[in-house]
Amino acid sequence: MDPLETLKSYTRHASVSTDPSYAGGMQGAREFATKLLEQLGFSVEVVDTALHPILYAERIRNPEWPHVVLYGHYDVQPADPFKLWTSDPFEPEVRDGRIYGRGTADNKGPTVVHMSALSRVLEQFPDLPLNLSYVIEGEEEIGSPSMEKFFDSHGERLSKADFLLVSDTGSPNAEQIVVTTAIRGLVDLEIQLKGANVDLHSGIHGGAVYNPIQALTEICASLHNPDGSVNVPGFYDNVFPVHDWEREQLKQYPETEESYRKMLGVRGFFPANGLSPLEAVRYGPTLEFNGIGGGYQGEGSKTVIPSEAFAKITCRLVANQDPATIQNAVVEAIEARCPDELELSIRKGGTGEPYMVVPPGRPGASDDQPASLVRAFKSAESSIAEVFGKPPLFLREGGSIPVIADFKNRAGLDSMMIGLFTPLDNLHAPDESFDLSIMKNAITAFEKIIKDIAGV
Amino acid sequence: MDPLETLKSYTRHASVSTDPSYAGGMQGAREFATKLLEQLGFSVEVVDTALHPILYAERIRNPEWPHVVLYGHYDVQPADPFKLWTSDPFEPEVRDGRIYGRGTADNKGPTVVHMSALSRVLEQFPDLPLNLSYVIEGEEEIGSPSMEKFFDSHGERLSKADFLLVSDTGSPNAEQIVVTTAIRGLVDLEIQLKGANVDLHSGIHGGAVYNPIQALTEICASLHNPDGSVNVPGFYDNVFPVHDWEREQLKQYPETEESYRKMLGVRGFFPANGLSPLEAVRYGPTLEFNGIGGGYQGEGSKTVIPSEAFAKITCRLVANQDPATIQNAVVEAIEARCPDELELSIRKGGTGEPYMVVPPGRPGASDDQPASLVRAFKSAESSIAEVFGKPPLFLREGGSIPVIADFKNRAGLDSMMIGLFTPLDNLHAPDESFDLSIMKNAITAFEKIIKDIAGV
Repeated sequence: MDPLETLKSYTRHASVSTDPSYAGGMQGAREFATKLLEQLGFSVEVVDTALHPILYAERIRNPEWPHVVLYGHYDVQPADPFKLWTSDPFEPEVRDGRIYGRGTADNKGPTVVHMSALSRVLEQFPDLPLNLSYVIEGEEEIGSPSMEKFFDSHGERLSKADFLLVSDTGSPNAEQIVVTTAIRGLVDLEIQLKGANVDLHSGIHGGAVYNPIQALTEICASLHNPDGSVNVPGFYDNVFPVHDWEREQLKQYPETEESYRKMLGVRGFFPANGLSPLEAVRYGPTLEFNGIGGGYQGEGSKTVIPSEAFAKITCRLVANQDPATIQNAVVEAIEARCPDELELSIRKGGTGEPYMVVPPGRPGASDDQPASLVRAFKSAESSIAEVFGKPPLFLREGGSIPVIADFKNRAGLDSMMIGLFTPLDNLHAPDESFDLSIMKNAITAFEKIIKDIAGV
Repeated sequence: MDPLETLKSYTRHASVSTDPSYAGGMQGAREFATKLLEQLGFSVEVVDTALHPILYAERIRNPEWPHVVLYGHYDVQPADPFKLWTSDPFEPEVRDGRIYGRGTADNKGPTVVHMSALSRVLEQFPDLPLNLSYVIEGEEEIGSPSMEKFFDSHGERLSKADFLLVSDTGSPNAEQIVVTTAIRGLVDLEIQLKGANVDLHSGIHGGAVYNPIQALTEICASLHNPDGSVNVPGFYDNVFPVHDWEREQLKQYPETEESYRKMLGVRGFFPANGLSPLEAVRYGPTLEFNGIGGGYQGEGSKTVIPSEAFAKITCRLVANQDPATIQNAVVEAIEARCPDELELSIRKGGTGEPYMVVPPGRPGASDDQPASLVRAFKSAESSIAEVFGKPPLFLREGGSIPVIADFKNRAGLDSMMIGLFTPLDNLHAPDESFDLSIMKNAITAFEKIIKDIAGV
């Protein structure tokens, strides 16, 4: 297969999962991916969901062979605003070593990389001793709402595999590939405080009542200590420690504190618990205020005591932290700190498990990692070093990919996440693109990795 | 003059100052008030302003006589939403002892009360030994923006008078009249904190930076002590003390803490500095959060670290507190408490002076009150007792009427504020009305008060 032409064709199917008017593009992308899988010798099942079907494909020959599951998604983000694109987001164009188009990087490019590598390997080894499954969903960009039911129906079959191979994470640049070893979990909650029935005149009634904004800021301010650490009992109890080798890996990351500070445009950093800023976003849990509101927010002033005020909070959790336990601990702390004069409501939002795989051979690694996963990590290190010129860095990441934790918790599969995006790719933004040098090198590297997993 | 018919005619002039489409109503009301004043023997000057002219009228006969200035406003609030009115807001209708219409209470009814009383007195004493001035402005409902220039041009003439007579405040019901002895001052400011250049992904960057909402809540929370008092150095330095007689007056106020609590719909009160809730809104200064905002405020969650967050703050000040000093003290406290990692901007908004007149003979009263003001307060007490059946209560109020402080500061005039509104009047709301029994009794009481001031 011609990787570039394949990616161009795949990208032309405008598969925007959130917008019903793109149903044709969704169907086209699904059929295109199905055809690619069939050409590679997979039997493809189109698994119906409430919205966009999931492709489940298998190429299973011998239960004794190692078994790898590959994950991807055929849906893309909306392309609006169209006028900010240099070329049509759904008519891909190559400029200066990059292919531009919605989904070229997220996640169609990496999917084509995997398939191209697999195609090359299978040309050389038609009887490759490796069982393979594919899960390509169509709702990743809207939060993977159908994956839970998919694990109900397919979890057991998936659990017979050894591990998951994913390329839906990032690397700092085209020379330095990152293998992501962990993603943070998530806890969502919202607090609302109510005082009087209606907004009150702050002259007529000011001084008698507890202003809900005042109480809200007091509660919110209590949730961190002066050093920036989270002030909720038990919050740090089970935090997975930072190992020296992780700090060492991070030191090789091609970003300095100063370049990071300038990129964000902040005056200074405020990491907690003795972590550096670059460590804190990867290795530490957080309690973050995502939004706050109450009272008058227009121009100038309006002399009211608002009836209500609210704050939106999410926590990012690191490995070993239990989202439900943390959510309850935060809720209990808030309840305990809310003054009696106000009515408190708390919306407990969703939670997502953190996930971590310590690379085989590193301190803290699990003893019972499948031999194929051990080979895969070893090969990733040497193959990427050989092709890209530098070994990959094994780093935890700060974001959350709930489906990765689900593969672990619902099917027992660890993930090897090899990042093919870079910050230049403009994911989710106009002029999304995929680096053709990464594409070319990654196909070669994955060709080696697949062979090493199969032992050929 | 027939008070009810006069008020009906005055109300029919739809004098909404904020809406240019009511220019005809503004002019009609101005001309109507001018005619009334001329009929009472005043010479009327229509003082041009940038928007709505001010009526300045004089009936000055002998510099030896006492001299009273009466203040009112001929503009009204908008009547929208019209569909919530039982009858046309600008076609007044009498129902169940009340006259309904926009402006019947605020402030046309009280103006007609004053003029009707004056008319009766002048019928009996055409050569009444009392100099009188009138200031009737047309921009009270939009914040009296032209009064400053008016004091530039007319302050000196006004300063020759003895005091100001105003009925633009409230009483609890038709039996219990309140003479308002003080109004609170106002300080306005807004703080904004800026962190990163743009909203950041809370997964990718969470843990490295100081969330502006977090810092904002910490600063805001620091502005009160746990007991609810304001935690700003010097805030209470010059606060006019609460005298025992003021507490005694308030005990006779026909409202209990429990009825007040139920009316507001709060679970409990939170007054500071040992004041009761009913005392705190009158006798204590406040620092109140009127609005707060930052980050995502829509449904559900969005995992951002916002770039910015803001809070709107106003302080209500009691007598002797200097607005500029307090504003600076709050600004300095905020600046001192803002972490270095964030960029702080503070908008210093407007300020308004507090105002207080201690009724003659009460502890704390000024020694140099004009004899006419002493007679006025004495007569108000006895005349209102005689007509309404109960003596008035002399109470400070929590709201702010900047023009009252301006009459003091720009022309040296104290104010006797006799409240003719009640909470049933629906000021600024649909179905505004004025109580006809208050109207009738107040005319009789003011007739006596004017005679007593003149000594006839």
